[in-house]
Amino acid sequence: MFNQRINKLRTDFSTLGIDAAIILNFENQFYFSGLKAITYSRPIVLGIDSETTHLIIPSLEEEHAKDKTTIENLYVYHETKLRSFEGESYLDYFSKLLDHFPENGRIGIEFSSLPVILGNMLTEKGFTLVNLDKHIAEMRFVKDEEELKLIREAGSLVSIALKNSLENAKAGITEIELDQFGNKALFQEVAKKHPNSTLDFFVMSPSGVKRTNMPHVFSNTRALETNDIIIHSRQVGFNGYRAECERTFFIGEPTSEQAKVFNIAVEAQAEVLKQIKVGMRASDVNEIARLIIADAGLEKYMNHRTGHGIGIGLHEEPSLRFDNELVLKEGMVFCVEPGIYVPDIGGFRHSDTVILTNEGTELITEYPSSLEELVF
Amino acid sequence: MFNQRINKLRTDFSTLGIDAAIILNFENQFYFSGLKAITYSRPIVLGIDSETTHLIIPSLEEEHAKDKTTIENLYVYHETKLRSFEGESYLDYFSKLLDHFPENGRIGIEFSSLPVILGNMLTEKGFTLVNLDKHIAEMRFVKDEEELKLIREAGSLVSIALKNSLENAKAGITEIELDQFGNKALFQEVAKKHPNSTLDFFVMSPSGVKRTNMPHVFSNTRALETNDIIIHSRQVGFNGYRAECERTFFIGEPTSEQAKVFNIAVEAQAEVLKQIKVGMRASDVNEIARLIIADAGLEKYMNHRTGHGIGIGLHEEPSLRFDNELVLKEGMVFCVEPGIYVPDIGGFRHSDTVILTNEGTELITEYPSSLEELVF
Repeated sequence: MFNQRINKLRTDFSTLGIDAAIILNFENQFYFSGLKAITYSRPIVLGIDSETTHLIIPSLEEEHAKDKTTIENLYVYHETKLRSFEGESYLDYFSKLLDHFPENGRIGIEFSSLPVILGNMLTEKGFTLVNLDKHIAEMRFVKDEEELKLIREAGSLVSIALKNSLENAKAGITEIELDQFGNKALFQEVAKKHPNSTLDFFVMSPSGVKRTNMPHVFSNTRALETNDIIIHSRQVGFNGYRAECERTFFIGEPTSEQAKVFNIAVEAQAEVLKQIKVGMRASDVNEIARLIIADAGLEKYMNHRTGHGIGIGLHEEPSLRFDNELVLKEGMVFCVEPGIYVPDIGGFRHSDTVILTNEGTELITEYPSSLEELVF
Repeated sequence: MFNQRINKLRTDFSTLGIDAAIILNFENQFYFSGLKAITYSRPIVLGIDSETTHLIIPSLEEEHAKDKTTIENLYVYHETKLRSFEGESYLDYFSKLLDHFPENGRIGIEFSSLPVILGNMLTEKGFTLVNLDKHIAEMRFVKDEEELKLIREAGSLVSIALKNSLENAKAGITEIELDQFGNKALFQEVAKKHPNSTLDFFVMSPSGVKRTNMPHVFSNTRALETNDIIIHSRQVGFNGYRAECERTFFIGEPTSEQAKVFNIAVEAQAEVLKQIKVGMRASDVNEIARLIIADAGLEKYMNHRTGHGIGIGLHEEPSLRFDNELVLKEGMVFCVEPGIYVPDIGGFRHSDTVILTNEGTELITEYPSSLEELVF
């Protein structure tokens, strides 16, 4: 699978006008090699030329890299007295790797990820830099069957986790404790069903009017209160591939203003989920939600797009944005999550993950969406 | 606190030979502004000149930024039809921000973090780039009292979590389930003691001979077996500041070879914890562990340094490496974790976090280290 992707990129070398590529972005490294590290505080560099593949890694990732990848040339840099030698640092190896590339060649790099320190080394050696950001994002647009299988399982897992957090919600517990109910259920489920697999998870539950108006904040130890509004937001990554499910809910009855905005947000999401399909433009999908919210007089309270692609990345292209004219294809996966954030009333957003197929959309996350089912 | 740090950096402008700085690294952004985002898939840029501060942020972080920072100029980029206008993208704002800086000036950037796309914009506008990586790392070397308070609390929390995972270890549960016991205890403790605080946590428990030889792998659903060796590794971040505690332990009795290597690793760590102090060189600290391990004939099985700084970062400078001649100062914080990784026998590493003071070292994590106390 990884070698197929590398070969696909090589096939594109001539169209892209490049002789080789350097991959720094850790999601893209995983996409092409299968290696994902816990931390990149010790840098990892993937190189791909027309003949071979190169990986610069710290010694403590050597076994991990051999276990996960079939990269041909490993450049292992060390940090112990016994094994560290002059001229064998990560930057030295980067320089050596570049010596494999055609002199004065054109090298594809990710302009949004490659740091200046490496960019400078490339230009000082006489290479011309070509931006691969868009091309690799596009390679990742459409998921293959193997990827979809993992994403479907992630969808099932994230739904289990969300259900367990929501159904244990009550006044007095903290945001972090709320998250824990779902985490526990998730870990038990994965342990039971999937020996030797890897789980990433992300969860946040901003609660109360002020915090739900901040779409991206870490869960904290604020205790839920009676009549709180909460956005419980989750992602699960199963063997590297993700799905997302989010629900806005209440402890006790919402105010009538909250109920009104809630229902508009739900309607906008439901209508997008109903209409989104292969052949539509991303901008038209965004427009479905925007019109519903604008008709209710709430457009000024939208502060993000209707949704985004998901896969290896938490957010990835394609973006369901008003200005994205891309035509949607079979195998794309989207989180649909129009949001409305009204000061002094609250933030409102559900999210579900769908796979687009030529036969229709496949909703891979599930939990009830209506107000009566989201009052605890 | 954040403004003091910004002013300190400004005071250093003349020594550094710069007119302004761009901060991209998210740890450094937190250090100077107090803002930490859930994800940087929508870029965030911090600019500091001699007069004022600038922050480029996506609209969904606007409230969050106003809540956490006192940055003077916010450049909010939008993604909705109502609010997005030509010339107001993140890159457009970056260009506008640069127009505030002195013409043909010298701009400090993090060469290891700033991506080529922004570096190119800077050079195309005629600015000269100066690398701030080292200077900012050095600013973060020594922690102030406020930072130490948070790190101490993180140390207490990580110890509670580790204890709860270890004391629930048994054959049949998975690595992920092992982690959960500690997570649950941690979340309960934080919720009880620290209203409105934020928690980051990291945990991994590679188990068995093969996986303990890979120092950095995500916990997976491998079930623990009788006679397994496990490295349980944790970090907790409390309101942004971290501490680390790790223990190697066994389910049932280790082999005599495992016991031998275990005891050497424990001795090396204990000796470093005993001797490390203000005024020593980092390389000499590393040497204490290296000599003990080398004397036992195990030097070739070391594959990383004896320890690292910790604070905002999971790993940060100063590094306790054989080639780091830095003299240690009061207020530095280190994770001490010499490791030995022997193929077919296992990986062995304990880690504890210490604060250096002029009066001695302050150990802020705790759990027994000896073999008899680490067989479950």
